Amino acid sequence: SKKTQKLSDRATFTTLTFEIFTPFVMSRSRGDPNWLKPRGVEQRNEGLRWLREHRRASLGGASEQGIVYFADDDNTYSLQLFQEMRNTQKVSVWPVGLVGSMKYESPMVKGGKVVGFHTGWRPSRPFPIDMAGFAVSLHLILSHPDACFDGDAPQGFLESSLLHGLVTMDELEPRADNCTKVLVWHTRTEKPKMKREEALQAQGLGSDPAVEV
Amino acid sequence: SKKTQKLSDRATFTTLTFEIFTPFVMSRSRGDPNWLKPRGVEQRNEGLRWLREHRRASLGGASEQGIVYFADDDNTYSLQLFQEMRNTQKVSVWPVGLVGSMKYESPMVKGGKVVGFHTGWRPSRPFPIDMAGFAVSLHLILSHPDACFDGDAPQGFLESSLLHGLVTMDELEPRADNCTKVLVWHTRTEKPKMKREEALQAQGLGSDPAVEV
Repeated sequence: SKKTQKLSDRATFTTLTFEIFTPFVMSRSRGDPNWLKPRGVEQRNEGLRWLREHRRASLGGASEQGIVYFADDDNTYSLQLFQEMRNTQKVSVWPVGLVGSMKYESPMVKGGKVVGFHTGWRPSRPFPIDMAGFAVSLHLILSHPDACFDGDAPQGFLESSLLHGLVTMDELEPRADNCTKVLVWHTRTEKPKMKREEALQAQGLGSDPAVEV
Repeated sequence: SKKTQKLSDRATFTTLTFEIFTPFVMSRSRGDPNWLKPRGVEQRNEGLRWLREHRRASLGGASEQGIVYFADDDNTYSLQLFQEMRNTQKVSVWPVGLVGSMKYESPMVKGGKVVGFHTGWRPSRPFPIDMAGFAVSLHLILSHPDACFDGDAPQGFLESSLLHGLVTMDELEPRADNCTKVLVWHTRTEKPKMKREEALQAQGLGSDPAVEV
């Protein structure tokens, strides 16, 4: 979108953006709670499709090196998190703070292996892990060409719909000191107050619309 | 505080923390709105005092090189901001997004000079600039040993109480493309929901209190 383009114009790293519309049937209708349908499914799947098309040219070569992480604008990330995911062989996992109406959700680790999940809701899901709580090696994405997100998955099963096609619980790689450190938080942002802005705009003295905020 | 110490333990850069108590008369009483008295005054002044004590040993030498910026945990910073403030001679200034009940507040710039301020409230203040909207060269701090924050300043005048002792409007150095780019936002954080956490804690299954979130 225009907004994404402007964000990437300001990024200090190389970005590549696509404009992908949300299909009408997936859109939020007036009055729908915002969790009625999974969001961002087409966009993430398009990301996976792009990787499969552009990065498999030289199979097994350097173009297969990389880590895939689904970041989002309502999370806060410690830079340390990106170090933790660097050595992902298949799928790395770690705790996510302030998510799922919990202090944190996290894989439970015993002897260096994930043996279950600390979550407040449906712990029986195959992978009760927030989108911010895992990263996948590019190699695994390329070697499983059909794995993708399922937009028809019931609430809370979107992450599982990708992961169950890629990995077993036993293969998950716990990071962040065996999942004891929280390095990403689902902070969200407080709705900003705009009373003075509105008052000034009414007088024709509002903020310059050309300045991106 | 214990919290600050834990944050700095996780930082990827060198930190030095002090425990400074808020004087009782400055504390927020039950029922006070949170803006009744300026917050963090003693703490920021202690930071200035520390710099003056420890960095003036070799006057004019390399120990005077540095930039002083008062960061806060309810803001979001673009890494680019820290590049912008690097060449501060006296005091650098730039816009701050989502602050003061405005889309943004900003110095107004003409011919490379600050000539006024875009703000929704008391534009007549000497420096109507949010704490996140300026940085000061260490050299200036050291050469003005009495400049500090005044805890008795009226609401909105805390930044002015420091800056008027250091600089004139004419000397302000506009950054961020002549104050046309927003690189810091007063985002604040949405109050996290904790319903499932509370339910699990009631069953003795709450999150591990040893995990810092």
